[in-house]
Amino acid sequence: MTPHRTTTTAAGLDAEQLRWLGELSRQLRVDSIRSSTAAGSGHPTSSLSAADLMAVLLARHLRYDWARPEHPGNDHLIFSKGHASPLLYAMFKAAGVVSDSELVEGFRRFGSRLQGHPTPVLPWVDVATGSLGQGLAYGVGIALAGARLDRLPYHVWVLCGDSEMTEGSIWEALDKAGFYRLSNLTAIVDVNRLGQRGPTELQWHLDTYQRRVEAFGCRAIVVDGHDLSQIEQAFHTARGADTPTVVLARTVKGKGVPEIEDRNGWHGRPLPPEPAEAAVAALGGPRDLRVSPPPPAPVDPIPTPVAASIPMPRYERGTRVATRVAYGEALAALGVRDDIVALDAEVGNSTGADRFAHAHPEKFFEMFIAEQQLLAAAVGVAARGYVPYASTFAAFWSRAYDFIRMAGVSGVHINLCGSHAGTEIGPDGPSQMGLEDLAALQAVHGSTVLYPADAVATTSLVATMADISGVCYLRTTRGAYPVLYDTDERFPVGGAKILRASDADVVALLGAGVTVHECLDAADALTGEGVSARVIDLYSVKPLDADTLARAAHDTGGRLVVVEDHYPQGGLGAAVLAALARLEIPARCAHLAVTELPGSGTPAEQLNAAGISARHIIAAARRLVAAQP
Amino acid sequence: MTPHRTTTTAAGLDAEQLRWLGELSRQLRVDSIRSSTAAGSGHPTSSLSAADLMAVLLARHLRYDWARPEHPGNDHLIFSKGHASPLLYAMFKAAGVVSDSELVEGFRRFGSRLQGHPTPVLPWVDVATGSLGQGLAYGVGIALAGARLDRLPYHVWVLCGDSEMTEGSIWEALDKAGFYRLSNLTAIVDVNRLGQRGPTELQWHLDTYQRRVEAFGCRAIVVDGHDLSQIEQAFHTARGADTPTVVLARTVKGKGVPEIEDRNGWHGRPLPPEPAEAAVAALGGPRDLRVSPPPPAPVDPIPTPVAASIPMPRYERGTRVATRVAYGEALAALGVRDDIVALDAEVGNSTGADRFAHAHPEKFFEMFIAEQQLLAAAVGVAARGYVPYASTFAAFWSRAYDFIRMAGVSGVHINLCGSHAGTEIGPDGPSQMGLEDLAALQAVHGSTVLYPADAVATTSLVATMADISGVCYLRTTRGAYPVLYDTDERFPVGGAKILRASDADVVALLGAGVTVHECLDAADALTGEGVSARVIDLYSVKPLDADTLARAAHDTGGRLVVVEDHYPQGGLGAAVLAALARLEIPARCAHLAVTELPGSGTPAEQLNAAGISARHIIAAARRLVAAQP
Repeated sequence: MTPHRTTTTAAGLDAEQLRWLGELSRQLRVDSIRSSTAAGSGHPTSSLSAADLMAVLLARHLRYDWARPEHPGNDHLIFSKGHASPLLYAMFKAAGVVSDSELVEGFRRFGSRLQGHPTPVLPWVDVATGSLGQGLAYGVGIALAGARLDRLPYHVWVLCGDSEMTEGSIWEALDKAGFYRLSNLTAIVDVNRLGQRGPTELQWHLDTYQRRVEAFGCRAIVVDGHDLSQIEQAFHTARGADTPTVVLARTVKGKGVPEIEDRNGWHGRPLPPEPAEAAVAALGGPRDLRVSPPPPAPVDPIPTPVAASIPMPRYERGTRVATRVAYGEALAALGVRDDIVALDAEVGNSTGADRFAHAHPEKFFEMFIAEQQLLAAAVGVAARGYVPYASTFAAFWSRAYDFIRMAGVSGVHINLCGSHAGTEIGPDGPSQMGLEDLAALQAVHGSTVLYPADAVATTSLVATMADISGVCYLRTTRGAYPVLYDTDERFPVGGAKILRASDADVVALLGAGVTVHECLDAADALTGEGVSARVIDLYSVKPLDADTLARAAHDTGGRLVVVEDHYPQGGLGAAVLAALARLEIPARCAHLAVTELPGSGTPAEQLNAAGISARHIIAAARRLVAAQP
Repeated sequence: MTPHRTTTTAAGLDAEQLRWLGELSRQLRVDSIRSSTAAGSGHPTSSLSAADLMAVLLARHLRYDWARPEHPGNDHLIFSKGHASPLLYAMFKAAGVVSDSELVEGFRRFGSRLQGHPTPVLPWVDVATGSLGQGLAYGVGIALAGARLDRLPYHVWVLCGDSEMTEGSIWEALDKAGFYRLSNLTAIVDVNRLGQRGPTELQWHLDTYQRRVEAFGCRAIVVDGHDLSQIEQAFHTARGADTPTVVLARTVKGKGVPEIEDRNGWHGRPLPPEPAEAAVAALGGPRDLRVSPPPPAPVDPIPTPVAASIPMPRYERGTRVATRVAYGEALAALGVRDDIVALDAEVGNSTGADRFAHAHPEKFFEMFIAEQQLLAAAVGVAARGYVPYASTFAAFWSRAYDFIRMAGVSGVHINLCGSHAGTEIGPDGPSQMGLEDLAALQAVHGSTVLYPADAVATTSLVATMADISGVCYLRTTRGAYPVLYDTDERFPVGGAKILRASDADVVALLGAGVTVHECLDAADALTGEGVSARVIDLYSVKPLDADTLARAAHDTGGRLVVVEDHYPQGGLGAAVLAALARLEIPARCAHLAVTELPGSGTPAEQLNAAGISARHIIAAARRLVAAQP
């Protein structure tokens, strides 16, 4: 047994263990300095403060098979303070999975996987971090999976910065950790007193942090973050605790390089080459210690899920069903699949998710009104291989937009449902209307954006979402509208449905969701006037069915009316115009969208006032047809 | 003196006062039931629980001249639980500013100002609420103005729901209230135990709320929310406290209607007409009590600011200046105007805001890393008539997107600066790159989106932003680029600048911010090949200069290359396509944007890899020119 590798016990560290861990922490410091100085950018001082914490964690507590990052029993390590990436990558070197040359020559370089902030391009990184206050929230999600879903004995360790403790998302995370009693979660707060531009709000008031953490239902352990024995004891206690633990570590920013210790002005700033060389020499020069960390607990092989046809809800054409209701019914049916999980932010009786909660209570997580944690929990369980469906009002996904953006960076597969979209919700007023969600969600890297018009399309898309990738967003409608499709109709992502068409079409009406119904009404009325209008259901907003669009433009002399229950910017109209431009399809596009701030009213009054109801579509179509092509 | 109107004293309420307040609270209950039942929607039970709290507040503590909502000394009342609008509107009736018929016939009706959730369309409402967890954060901003800016003796009262206490933004707000010792702020938490779909996370565990509130630096007072004397004492104490106060009121949802008291399933559900009639009768029927609340403290007339020409920084053409630096320098110069205020989220040394902080420390507010509260504080001081400039990285405004959306609903004027936009930031990687901010911000109602290419444009736009309206967003760049314009050049909102033009132009290159420089390089190279290219700086992304665009399309045979450091969706390209479609301008538009997830690298490597550097612009222009028009 190497000195640093012992079974974790409550006993203190002996002299040899302390000596070895001291060597390891110096190696982590040296490598943090070397990589950032070589890159000419990065955050060495934020790495130096946490080096002792991470040395003890890596060598003695992080149960991890470094040769098998996919091992289901591996612990999880998240750097919520993602800017301390030099330290994380130095740990990877000490674990033997990143070479010294990759570390020093690759850090922050173009094409390198050792990016400025960690992302899952590295197999030992679960989630991208770098937007502060997020890593702990993801850790809660992973710990939730361990405690309630796969029930494996891994532990989740999250290294937080003290600056990020002012983010509300940290307190959403600790609140949920406490509520779900996630004893498999340990947050380690590197309280180094200095933020980017000066002292943090609470500086070294560890007692205030302690009171806050404890009030939120977690156990707090205060340590000197440079005392290896105190750290050892804290991590040992944390792993054995019956509540989530927050280790509050008093540290010194820049620790190990006396010239910059606890000095302002050194955040995000590498040491210049000469001082770096001196600092490295003073720390004993480069080393190549390797840790042999404790292995993960053995776990039973995870059974391969049996692929089976799942009976999904069926709907009769013409019956009136809200797509939010269909979402819940489809999700409840899909829940027989072991990997399907659902979450909601205290509005499950509105979004439809309560149907899943009733059918599969063990796989439903109530996140109460905390949309950032809702999103992060979805990401966390997805990182464990589950397929989460998270729902709230479309408007309120804006609360989690930074997390959604970062999920796009992580490349994780999560399914989001936003209900009560648009002015159609009626009397509740603009605070409850999602009118910018299509813009926000389309702009997320790798996203898919779906907006079904009826219950059949919703059902099909909910099932399809289980097996795609990236951030997938489904927009649903509050009110009940007629089922438009036969119950076995399929709705591939990237497709569209032509609901009315003839060789005589002189205009095409393009809608999605609720406006499809308005388009159908408009087409019927136009037919009565002798104007033949094609109606297209663009249920897949991103990716958009450009072929169907091109055909419609070709067949109608380029006369298109696109209508959406959304602000004019970045929504369905923008997607249509982008597709037309990309394919260089000549067209004249009348775009009807919500231009004025709505108030209260009935759904019909709202659609009318917004200029997106059938009569406005009719008027727009008439204008296009009347004008010369 | 009417019995209910006494100067606030620590003495208890006498029997007559209690009787009168009891009558008033019954009136508020009756009116909450009547309006919601008449509307057929709304949240009476959430109103009933807080009726006693609000009766005491309205009659005895809210110093407000109801005839003069603009009175600078008026207290502020914010319903953070905006869904309790029936109660708020019932208070307005009791204050004599809304008639009984408007209340009952107008609530939630089309065209009525008594919307489902309150907005500033009502002169007594400072900010729109309805997205939970926001009202308290706005209250912090208003209280900050009172404590640090106008220094008037008004008090800020915020009614919170218990469900919203799980939002992280609540804890950002209480943290900042404590940090700034906002003794002029009182939060009143209506702990009625029931959320929308069931019990809240903490139910009636008032002790847990108390520990949390106290740990965050506020005074907690626990009361029975239906005991008028306890409420009176708590509000009296709160107004005289030297710290922010949180009154934790144990209440019963539906209080006053025994059939639905503390019963799940009654959230957001009006009483049907018959039970409503019975409940109203049991509560003594409709009343028309009027309060004569304590008047606001007299305040000195606010001096009209002297309009004076402010010397702004000047830059030499060709010198290299980062627009984020120019932002800070312009803001510091503009700060001589009394109404200009700046805020930042602990990155002022990156965004440039630290220059303002040094020049005008008394008008700069460090919000630490809490972007939601950063935005909310800006809204709060704007509600007091100040002109806030709030800054963080462009990427991190996504953290506050729900608040930005709601600022659009409020119609408040706030200026936001997002620095470090796009892949241009270089080695920090995608977590720090704003690549969806143009999409998100354009989709906010009433927003203006600006993206200057140089220091002169930035300076001009920062000054212009002071006097426009709505949510105004300025995007700045990390790196230093040459000054392009003469220092006295003006940059009106909605304008564009033509940087290269000739009668021989066969293609137009459209950029904004950093890509303008790439367009100029491309144009120079194209000229060398005999291809004359117009270069247009679209510094005003929303509104866009459609005339200049139309002329360019006309002059170049419709050949446009639009290039942006942003994801393809919803940004500059989308704005260009929307303008072309609106004006029915025939054009062929090559759109260069960031399609793949970036990693680390130098700015030049990033722009190249993203396909948005000069060589890609050149190639796109060549392709357009080579193709037949």
